[in-house]
Amino acid sequence: MREKYVPQAEIDFRIRRLQKSLVREQIEAVLIVYKMDYFYFSGQAQDSILFVPAEGKPLLLVFRDIDRAKKESPLEQVVPLAAMGDLYKVIKNFYGSLPRRIGLELDVVPVRDYFRFQELLLRPEIVDSAKIIRQLRMCKSPFEIAQMRRAGEIGNKVHEEGLNILKEGMTEIEFGGHLELVAKQLEHEGLIRVRSLNYEAYSWHILSGTSGSIVSQANSPMGGAGLSPAFPVGAGIKKIKAHEPILVDFGVCYNGYLVDFTRMYSIGTLPDKYVKAYEASRTIERAVLEEARPGADCGEIYEKTVILAAKLGYEEYYLGIPEKKAFFVAHGVGLEINEIPFLASGQHYALEEGTTIAIEPKMVFPEEAGVGIENTVLITKQGVEKLTTSSEEIFQV
Amino acid sequence: MREKYVPQAEIDFRIRRLQKSLVREQIEAVLIVYKMDYFYFSGQAQDSILFVPAEGKPLLLVFRDIDRAKKESPLEQVVPLAAMGDLYKVIKNFYGSLPRRIGLELDVVPVRDYFRFQELLLRPEIVDSAKIIRQLRMCKSPFEIAQMRRAGEIGNKVHEEGLNILKEGMTEIEFGGHLELVAKQLEHEGLIRVRSLNYEAYSWHILSGTSGSIVSQANSPMGGAGLSPAFPVGAGIKKIKAHEPILVDFGVCYNGYLVDFTRMYSIGTLPDKYVKAYEASRTIERAVLEEARPGADCGEIYEKTVILAAKLGYEEYYLGIPEKKAFFVAHGVGLEINEIPFLASGQHYALEEGTTIAIEPKMVFPEEAGVGIENTVLITKQGVEKLTTSSEEIFQV
Repeated sequence: MREKYVPQAEIDFRIRRLQKSLVREQIEAVLIVYKMDYFYFSGQAQDSILFVPAEGKPLLLVFRDIDRAKKESPLEQVVPLAAMGDLYKVIKNFYGSLPRRIGLELDVVPVRDYFRFQELLLRPEIVDSAKIIRQLRMCKSPFEIAQMRRAGEIGNKVHEEGLNILKEGMTEIEFGGHLELVAKQLEHEGLIRVRSLNYEAYSWHILSGTSGSIVSQANSPMGGAGLSPAFPVGAGIKKIKAHEPILVDFGVCYNGYLVDFTRMYSIGTLPDKYVKAYEASRTIERAVLEEARPGADCGEIYEKTVILAAKLGYEEYYLGIPEKKAFFVAHGVGLEINEIPFLASGQHYALEEGTTIAIEPKMVFPEEAGVGIENTVLITKQGVEKLTTSSEEIFQV
Repeated sequence: MREKYVPQAEIDFRIRRLQKSLVREQIEAVLIVYKMDYFYFSGQAQDSILFVPAEGKPLLLVFRDIDRAKKESPLEQVVPLAAMGDLYKVIKNFYGSLPRRIGLELDVVPVRDYFRFQELLLRPEIVDSAKIIRQLRMCKSPFEIAQMRRAGEIGNKVHEEGLNILKEGMTEIEFGGHLELVAKQLEHEGLIRVRSLNYEAYSWHILSGTSGSIVSQANSPMGGAGLSPAFPVGAGIKKIKAHEPILVDFGVCYNGYLVDFTRMYSIGTLPDKYVKAYEASRTIERAVLEEARPGADCGEIYEKTVILAAKLGYEEYYLGIPEKKAFFVAHGVGLEINEIPFLASGQHYALEEGTTIAIEPKMVFPEEAGVGIENTVLITKQGVEKLTTSSEEIFQV
């Protein structure tokens, strides 16, 4: 497992960048209490809180398990925190005083905890540090890209095996379970993390025929039936039939890092209509790959795909049925599936080098099916590199 | 999927009970924004907000997808909510005025949303409604118990097949992937929901030999190695060997409802020491089953198990290694894996009829292994009924 540890230099660099932002925003310190954030800055995901002052060494306070946190984190100052009530005391011991202007991830931290922190830290000014942290996490380092590349390789293997697994009459969830097993055997970590109170992600977004046209809570072109009203998204118990489009949108997690990717399957040939729609989806993807350069405007790239889809004759189908379309063509991906940037309506900011995004121009035919492609790619100075590299032809069984 | 819908009478009853609590606590209305809570009171899990006044009909406001929400929820008033900014307007339209004392789930709702709601609802007094809701969700109805029973049956099947799947040299995660596939084929929904910012649950808590003694972030006797510092709990890549205890703690979700259950496996015979520890764990479980009656004190049952474990000679091993023990023997389970009640240190309240809990008296031998049993049970007037009913002998391959 050693080779999976986040290297010291990586953590040092991340902390330095964070401290620079804190100085710029005049925040004296941040309390990082959200797991994927403190994992990013400490290299460990034990139950803990990371305190980072704008100047000086960070302090990792660990509820459980302190020994693992010490082993896995390259940080120097790693101490146990027996109870939340000791927070004030421990910070004061290390730094002499408590900061009066503190950052906290207000987009995810529950209200009850916020009030608790206010009390424990003697009513400092608490500001939202989520934006800073999300911004820092957006551009990936070579180490992070290597993890995502490996996740992509697991995904390639999943699709290779998928061809052998898929059989007529199999249910969507059964197919999904088989693909998950392939992925798990290759160290896929099973959970697809999301930064959200209610939004849940999962690997098995497998929608055959009509399922591909079912809208659900998911902010995506198609939600699928899911298995019940309690879990109303993704693969359902519909049996997969011959000659219908089978959309396999499969997320993989390796060493915390995700790739998101979609390939089309069919049993026997597909009606021309769907083959053509899939080709249009690939054409739109290629257009995005052309445009996606450091400095390009995220919202503009999205708008251009809408125009292109219309020009190709897919205005009605692009990104969902007319009344219920999704309004993005790509989303950032890394430790979480909904990172910035979003190539989406109204998101007018520049794409940056080192950003990793999942591009998914999909088409939905009401009451019929959904088709489309999705790749996770890295934005480089020279252009775009795909991290998910399996064949993009329709996987025909 | 129809048979999975929550019946009208069930929803009516739940809303009536909620309204009674609101009247008692002098809360004019609750805004239910956390998915498993609004699923409980509306029967649907689309992206939505449920507004329940202390008197009058509830209003379900749906972002996406309104048609599915209408189909799946027995509630009468189901309306679209195009944007959060319309909240005030829609509520005012339906009720004439806005409540000035509103409940919100402050244990999970993020700070940013809280401030947004304060603004949108013209600065009402916002009180914490999480406790009320968790309390109401604690006792299960016959419909809920039926779902859990079905989840238990899926779990039984998982363990039946487990015997055919387990082979020497298989990794823990591989074994877990196979068990998951069995469960998914029977409509296991894949996610194990938790009410927490950072705590994550998963089905594949499979710990062989030394893995059973690895402590991690999980608030449980043993955490396991997991696959990486980013996912440091549960099954890892350790190869499963002959003659070592294999603890298979597998969660199943059916129609939103969970059961949590653990069986011991071995390849060939196990050293006597572990067999005896497992027997002690079963003895402690039987003692809990004897004590677990409506009216019994949750904390006292836990304390008694600590005394019993010591009497049986397992003081050092019971619920974890000495310095890092867990302090509970059972936790509530339903839509989430960490519901109330907790049979735990300091939890002095009465057990109630209709409560469903997972009892898990486990033993950890430092640097060696973990063993134990776990069943999800229902507290009835007459006694305790197991919802997980597969053989409790060691599954020996």
